[in-house]
Amino acid sequence: MPEKPSIPKGTRDFSPDEMQRRYHIFNTIRSVFTLYGYLPIETPAMENLSTLLGKYGDEGDRLLFRVLNSGNFLDGIDRAGLPDAEPAKLSAAICEKGLRYDLTVPFARYVVQHRNEIVFPFKRFQIQPVWRADRPQKGRYREFYQCDADVIGSDSLLNEYELILIIREVFRRLGMKTVIRVNNRKVLTGMAEIAGAGDRITDITTEIDKLDKIGSDAVIEALSQKGIPVDAIDRIMPLLAISGTVNEKLDTLDGIFTGSTVGRHGVSELRELFSRFKKDEIEGIDLDLALARGLNYYTGAIIEVKSLDTEIGSVCGGGRYDNLAGIFGMDGLSGVGVSFGADRIYDVMLKAGLFPPFSETGTRLMIVNFGGREMTYALEIAGMLRSKGISVEVYPDAVKLKKQFGYADSRHIPGVIIAGEEEIASGHVTLKDMITGTQTRLTIEELIERYE
Amino acid sequence: MPEKPSIPKGTRDFSPDEMQRRYHIFNTIRSVFTLYGYLPIETPAMENLSTLLGKYGDEGDRLLFRVLNSGNFLDGIDRAGLPDAEPAKLSAAICEKGLRYDLTVPFARYVVQHRNEIVFPFKRFQIQPVWRADRPQKGRYREFYQCDADVIGSDSLLNEYELILIIREVFRRLGMKTVIRVNNRKVLTGMAEIAGAGDRITDITTEIDKLDKIGSDAVIEALSQKGIPVDAIDRIMPLLAISGTVNEKLDTLDGIFTGSTVGRHGVSELRELFSRFKKDEIEGIDLDLALARGLNYYTGAIIEVKSLDTEIGSVCGGGRYDNLAGIFGMDGLSGVGVSFGADRIYDVMLKAGLFPPFSETGTRLMIVNFGGREMTYALEIAGMLRSKGISVEVYPDAVKLKKQFGYADSRHIPGVIIAGEEEIASGHVTLKDMITGTQTRLTIEELIERYE
Repeated sequence: MPEKPSIPKGTRDFSPDEMQRRYHIFNTIRSVFTLYGYLPIETPAMENLSTLLGKYGDEGDRLLFRVLNSGNFLDGIDRAGLPDAEPAKLSAAICEKGLRYDLTVPFARYVVQHRNEIVFPFKRFQIQPVWRADRPQKGRYREFYQCDADVIGSDSLLNEYELILIIREVFRRLGMKTVIRVNNRKVLTGMAEIAGAGDRITDITTEIDKLDKIGSDAVIEALSQKGIPVDAIDRIMPLLAISGTVNEKLDTLDGIFTGSTVGRHGVSELRELFSRFKKDEIEGIDLDLALARGLNYYTGAIIEVKSLDTEIGSVCGGGRYDNLAGIFGMDGLSGVGVSFGADRIYDVMLKAGLFPPFSETGTRLMIVNFGGREMTYALEIAGMLRSKGISVEVYPDAVKLKKQFGYADSRHIPGVIIAGEEEIASGHVTLKDMITGTQTRLTIEELIERYE
Repeated sequence: MPEKPSIPKGTRDFSPDEMQRRYHIFNTIRSVFTLYGYLPIETPAMENLSTLLGKYGDEGDRLLFRVLNSGNFLDGIDRAGLPDAEPAKLSAAICEKGLRYDLTVPFARYVVQHRNEIVFPFKRFQIQPVWRADRPQKGRYREFYQCDADVIGSDSLLNEYELILIIREVFRRLGMKTVIRVNNRKVLTGMAEIAGAGDRITDITTEIDKLDKIGSDAVIEALSQKGIPVDAIDRIMPLLAISGTVNEKLDTLDGIFTGSTVGRHGVSELRELFSRFKKDEIEGIDLDLALARGLNYYTGAIIEVKSLDTEIGSVCGGGRYDNLAGIFGMDGLSGVGVSFGADRIYDVMLKAGLFPPFSETGTRLMIVNFGGREMTYALEIAGMLRSKGISVEVYPDAVKLKKQFGYADSRHIPGVIIAGEEEIASGHVTLKDMITGTQTRLTIEELIERYE
């Protein structure tokens, strides 16, 4: 017998049980996106490497999966030079395509490529897998799904407001307890400016982003190592810890930002955004002045969602970027978006027992197979149930009842229909509830009524 | 400005309009699969090349997309030998992974890999993209979706019967006119046997498969070129053209197959299968003795569906295979499955105008943005509508009405809500029907009632 087959490390198969849970997450996210007028697009798994390279930093370039050119990939390659070829250069020569690394860059590419067909503001969502050649570890995969919603071509803060409502509604429907942390990059820039380090904003946000994980001493150390002056660090760190209600925090910042136009803009944007939330909407939404988000293309609002059910880090994040399509030569389009991490959400929900029971999502009834004449009756009942939209299967083989019931049990089918000679004679069926074990005699009409 | 970005040839972006049509197809297929108790699985886009190679013939091996090993892909490669390396050998050394070519081989791999977790019979469906480095042409893409349902571990003909009902129901729901052609590989083998060419069944089915496309003269010529004796060809060709009702055809074959056990088995399987169909189910299902299906792993029933709406060839196909998991060392598992070609179905439905109007599938209402105080009222209405599951968007910017209405129009949003000062004062809204142009004054309750 050949070796047992396997799949590439960091990738996964999804069983029916896992798929039903995953559908529950995807369908919930999709429904809420749709409720707010976001529409789906899809982009190909493979993009030209010229689209992907240089968009995710050196680390990202290294983590791209590259697809070998089809046909003779050595065509046009200098064969004699191969022994001394640099791997990076050679891979660029023999691979033109790579697998999608995230959904944001393909979206920016899509917007620029289809600019003449798109009506702006363009509200799109996209739920597709992405691939990264990262070292696989617990909770980190080489193939995983992202669920993104973005609106591009509108700088109204209404978009931020509605995206936060979308986040709230998704997690409400999933039954997850979360805190939605909101900040604004302009506020962080303002802090850097009044500390005299306005030109170091990229380094500063990169380090502040680690505050949660490594603590403030380590962040101070890291900032200092990056050459941020000690007095600037001393100025910035207390600002991140400003406390009080949302309005108190914003008032404090306004007092501090007299010397920073961009800082005052940030405060004013946050004030407008938070003023939108009604009393019953604000719960679970925090203004977190230390929230930085690592990605450098954010320019305005930034959003991050933590699960309170388990300690798993961020389950959703996003923000406003003022010039993402600019990387493909189309300037002046402001956008804002959020991305749900379906795999992390899955892990949280599984651990916290938040998935609905299979009986609500899978096959609802199985009909026992007695073979022969009983089969005709069974198939008729199956047809009637299916015409009412009730998911039912007929066990395909006339094997021992024990085996058939065992199958229904392991498939989590909550009800089994027995329709033998006696039932046929009287026009009834016997329904066995697989959870309680009770058996009930029903007419077919009563059966349909119970499941419809 | 940089060059306008593009995507790899043979791949496609899907716009929101296209996605809504595609969802319509996928959701329909998924619903029907589920109705019959098939459950979803998913497998990774990348498989080990050892799983894929040799499963699709030489042509298939050539058409696999290979993924370059990550890290230094030249590690362990004989650098000095590179100038003389054969492309095929080198690609095997630098690529361990490839993109999925179909869903059948990954399914067989899945079954063998997870044999200890699976309860047989295993009824699974899978809707995922596949990749082939084929020359792109009209209607043929390098990335396209397959929608497969298979049951493995049961040789009951009930599975064939239900899969044909699934096909009927999918196309009924999609509104497509089709003919479902059914045959059995054992019948073709029987024909070859009584013609004295039982050992040439693979060549014979490969050529007969082309009958539709190239006609019988060309098939005779091709069979002869493959070395099938002329008298065998003369014996087989008339059998493919046996006419009459299903039972007449089967009776004729029974008379002919006195010398072929496998042929009689084929006839008996077809007789049992066709006897299952009730009068109202049989319409559009044909016994086509000339149906061969190119794939060599089929061993029993074969099924092919042609669209009658346009001349596009097959939109769905399938059959029984007795030993597919055997390629991964697990023998004795019989399976039967069907595969829907979503991209071809899309093309047929678009051409025949069979998609539902966008107004039924997309955003249903847009609320005009007047800015300021009106915005609070607008957001309140939006919240109420959404809480009833009605998909609505608020135009994000307070720009000219003409622009806002133009947006709603191009987005196919069927209704626009105007809620200005006057409406707010009286607690009403004005609803503009974007199709007829009529405006109606409604209370919010009346509005909800109309869309709920």
